[in-house]
Amino acid sequence: MRIGFDAMGGDHAPRAVIEGALFGLRQYADLTAVLFGAEDRLLETIRTLSDRERIRSYLDSGRLSIVHATDVILAEEEPVRAVRHKKESSLVKGVAALAAGELDAFVSAGSTGALVASGLFILGRMPGMDRPALAPMLPTLSGRGVLVLDVGANVDAKAQHLVQYALIGHLYARKMMDRAHPRVGLLNIGTEPGKGHLLAKSAYDLIYDLSQRDPSFQFVGNVEARDVMFDQADVVVTDGFTGNIFLKTTEGVALAISGMLKEALMSHVITKAGALLAAPGLKKLKTKLDYKAYGGTPLLGLKRPLIKAHGSSDAQAILAALRQAYGAVEHNLIDVLSEALSSHDIFEKETSQE
Amino acid sequence: MRIGFDAMGGDHAPRAVIEGALFGLRQYADLTAVLFGAEDRLLETIRTLSDRERIRSYLDSGRLSIVHATDVILAEEEPVRAVRHKKESSLVKGVAALAAGELDAFVSAGSTGALVASGLFILGRMPGMDRPALAPMLPTLSGRGVLVLDVGANVDAKAQHLVQYALIGHLYARKMMDRAHPRVGLLNIGTEPGKGHLLAKSAYDLIYDLSQRDPSFQFVGNVEARDVMFDQADVVVTDGFTGNIFLKTTEGVALAISGMLKEALMSHVITKAGALLAAPGLKKLKTKLDYKAYGGTPLLGLKRPLIKAHGSSDAQAILAALRQAYGAVEHNLIDVLSEALSSHDIFEKETSQE
Repeated sequence: MRIGFDAMGGDHAPRAVIEGALFGLRQYADLTAVLFGAEDRLLETIRTLSDRERIRSYLDSGRLSIVHATDVILAEEEPVRAVRHKKESSLVKGVAALAAGELDAFVSAGSTGALVASGLFILGRMPGMDRPALAPMLPTLSGRGVLVLDVGANVDAKAQHLVQYALIGHLYARKMMDRAHPRVGLLNIGTEPGKGHLLAKSAYDLIYDLSQRDPSFQFVGNVEARDVMFDQADVVVTDGFTGNIFLKTTEGVALAISGMLKEALMSHVITKAGALLAAPGLKKLKTKLDYKAYGGTPLLGLKRPLIKAHGSSDAQAILAALRQAYGAVEHNLIDVLSEALSSHDIFEKETSQE
Repeated sequence: MRIGFDAMGGDHAPRAVIEGALFGLRQYADLTAVLFGAEDRLLETIRTLSDRERIRSYLDSGRLSIVHATDVILAEEEPVRAVRHKKESSLVKGVAALAAGELDAFVSAGSTGALVASGLFILGRMPGMDRPALAPMLPTLSGRGVLVLDVGANVDAKAQHLVQYALIGHLYARKMMDRAHPRVGLLNIGTEPGKGHLLAKSAYDLIYDLSQRDPSFQFVGNVEARDVMFDQADVVVTDGFTGNIFLKTTEGVALAISGMLKEALMSHVITKAGALLAAPGLKKLKTKLDYKAYGGTPLLGLKRPLIKAHGSSDAQAILAALRQAYGAVEHNLIDVLSEALSSHDIFEKETSQE
């Protein structure tokens, strides 16, 4: 299996990306890793790593290779423009290789917008999906996790996009999350039908219709943001703007609370002692909330597996994203999704109304 | 000062509302409290309270009185319909008394939608405000707090509503939050200008224009959801749908983390001992995150002070909401806001384009 990496993408590139790929090579015997980036810089970084003999053998055997890319897309660049103009960037070259069939999957911790744009323009959409969706797994109280989509690929979504997300989320949860009967919910500001803004109301109606026509599709209705972490659904559907606000709020509050917790516990010698004793418990909590364990974010609805890793990914987070890419290829995810989407008569009728 | 209470609104009504009003009577010598609700039920509840002599004296002196209301609006009722049909409900009768000048402010922990609808239909809007906004103070890391508006009064907001929220939020922060130069930000999915969906982009441009024409108005640009709790702004503006998702996510994550924390700490005898020692610190954190201390949520943009208390309010939370109502009347908030809004030439021009 050939998986490509945007070696220049993310806050800790190229080092974290290279290390993550190396972890993967050790873990998966059938993996070939292709690093896209400035060759000199990558080789220079590799020279600073320990275990150079093993790396040498990966390079010699061809399990690790470098595809030279002269350019880099920066986080602050306008995505569509960047993808159109920076053909020699590590991100665009990698996605192009994926589109050409030279790779089975591609992982990037670089610009989310550029990854979405290159997915749309270079890879192309699956039949039946008007827009791809970023679909991360987020932690829940039970530890099972919840798939939330979209969290930012499509910020001006229409109701019809949301019903497509509902269906692909349902299919993904069955195939990749091991949930035989995933409960799909719509993120909304109240649980009763009829709640929300115009978009949410229309989306509710379309998803409800889908559930009436397809008995295997389970719609649990509106889910409030407050209840998502309490395992009220396996899949939560929303537009990219709302989903991104939801995701970032989750991150922000978790970060703020851990800051407040630290301050509160360190304010007195007794509570400090308590914190010391409680440290293993606190660490366990931190692990539970850690995005790294949950892997990267697949961009669902494209013709091949494209995985977005968090911008601040370290090597472990890159490995988790790689694991997800590996799983998608291993489970033949794209074929399964495409087949299910194209056989979905009701759904096709719905989307052809645009 | 006469403040009215929806004695039938909220999860712990009427008891929590009555007790909250009684706390207020003890605290403010010039306060008169008017309870709207089923007279029998209220008197019956009062009979179960301790300190009955004091209550008797309040009733005798007229500082505490009851206005009989035969009906109640339930949380699940369609708000506009409920307000139109349930004229004899505690909520509608209270707002009508406020509109008639019989009260200086009104507090309700009942249906948010019904309160917004009665505010619009019975009280009416301030000149210069197309829609009222729910504007709660939310906790931040520094303890200063941030005003977020709108969190659900106006779920299909237009860009022009958001610039009105920006201005009224700025004025409110100066008058009521003691911030001489409040930093106003727009909730968005990135910090750079040009980020976000169409609504956010248009709102950004309008608010930026306002800041260019009025040097006293400080616009700090887009604020990411992740940064709101980190005091990146004093006032954060958003549409009612997004704001409600933001608010509920904050609540949900805080709740989930405290659940996870408890579980993590109680899982082992050593961490349990640590938690026991750390208890004062943990309690301090809980207080910091407690919505009750931050009071109720004013509905800004109406002709008189209308305060929404949290549905799960206990007596302390009702008292906090009352304190806010008291402050609004004491500071002559409505006149100050109306005057500033009507003198705002630029703003008037902006809103007249609708």
